[in-house]
Amino acid sequence: MVKRKAVVLLSGGLDSATVLALAREQGFEALALSFDYGQRHACELASARQVAAALGAAGHWILPLNLALWGGSALTDPTIPVPDAAASHGIPETYVPARNLVFLSLAAACAEASGARDLFIGVNSVDYSGYPDCRPAFIESFTRTVNLATRAADEDWKFEVHAPLQHLSKAEIIREGVRLGVDYGLTVSCYHPDAEGRACGRCASCALRREGFAAAGVPDPTRYQG
Amino acid sequence: MVKRKAVVLLSGGLDSATVLALAREQGFEALALSFDYGQRHACELASARQVAAALGAAGHWILPLNLALWGGSALTDPTIPVPDAAASHGIPETYVPARNLVFLSLAAACAEASGARDLFIGVNSVDYSGYPDCRPAFIESFTRTVNLATRAADEDWKFEVHAPLQHLSKAEIIREGVRLGVDYGLTVSCYHPDAEGRACGRCASCALRREGFAAAGVPDPTRYQG
Repeated sequence: MVKRKAVVLLSGGLDSATVLALAREQGFEALALSFDYGQRHACELASARQVAAALGAAGHWILPLNLALWGGSALTDPTIPVPDAAASHGIPETYVPARNLVFLSLAAACAEASGARDLFIGVNSVDYSGYPDCRPAFIESFTRTVNLATRAADEDWKFEVHAPLQHLSKAEIIREGVRLGVDYGLTVSCYHPDAEGRACGRCASCALRREGFAAAGVPDPTRYQG
Repeated sequence: MVKRKAVVLLSGGLDSATVLALAREQGFEALALSFDYGQRHACELASARQVAAALGAAGHWILPLNLALWGGSALTDPTIPVPDAAASHGIPETYVPARNLVFLSLAAACAEASGARDLFIGVNSVDYSGYPDCRPAFIESFTRTVNLATRAADEDWKFEVHAPLQHLSKAEIIREGVRLGVDYGLTVSCYHPDAEGRACGRCASCALRREGFAAAGVPDPTRYQG
């Protein structure tokens, strides 16, 4: 039997590594897609490469996409500092304008060109930073839109967008990954790691990750600075 | 009074030049956005630059975006030939997977980062090539999605997607452009122009354009090959 292909958005962080493992468990031939988008934490791309290889992705694209051209986020504009976890209220400075909309749209383009009809994304709306593009209403609306934007509109198939982490806590995500043999030591979640890829331990992403390992009762493999 | 900013998708072709002129007529400060996406007809970017300058765009971004990485279209894969106009049935080989979804998503990202809330796109569903991402149902669904994907979801404003050519014939578009002083001699519509930017006269895009000028009773300024 020919395996069904899926495009899996892979950042190099904890969540998307877990999603890749879940897609593989479901029997998909996984095409991983990452973006070199001018992010402050571009070392996550080295992690993405290692994770894609370790979890048996059938292919891995890294698309250059210079979102720093217009900035608008602490992650793509070096003049905007990354806030500490405690400082975040509402949508934080680390929100990248329309990032998941752009990433899912490019995943759909890649999928349509590759004969894949399934898209996987690691959005989560439980232990998350409040980004609007991580919520179920966005994913549902995107699914309707992508099926009007592509050959799916005229042909006898539909895109399906899988967001298997949507309603899991960070601890539940980590337990799923451990069950599937994900090596979280390969992943980087920090928004401003140092040159060796060691985490700051202070940003919102570090805080969510650290609390997740503690709540899951799993040793935290993260390398921290200092 | 401060002008409202709008992001205008600008390809270098006839339709988007007309849209830029319409956005300017409506009083918007227009930020033009083009993509160097691996298209066969990359000379359209030189046209886009000239059109942006001629029509008074306040800025012009050209974002490198290598959609040829996965191909899937006669426009982004040199091994797939561009069909002649008469050969087209259904969605033609020149359809680029999810192109307008990707372009509008990036326009939204650029707009959100720049303080613009209005997006302009030259889609048309009258004299068009049958691409699914040119139809009103897609534009309406995208508008709902973008307003869930961004700060608009949590704040007191909404994105508006303007598709002012949606229901115009090619002749009507050309008459609008002539009224607004658009120099169509600067624009390139052809899918495989030669090195000097001269049109082939045979592809579907050339055919729609040529018939449009004839129906509008406007002299066709297009430079054809041979």
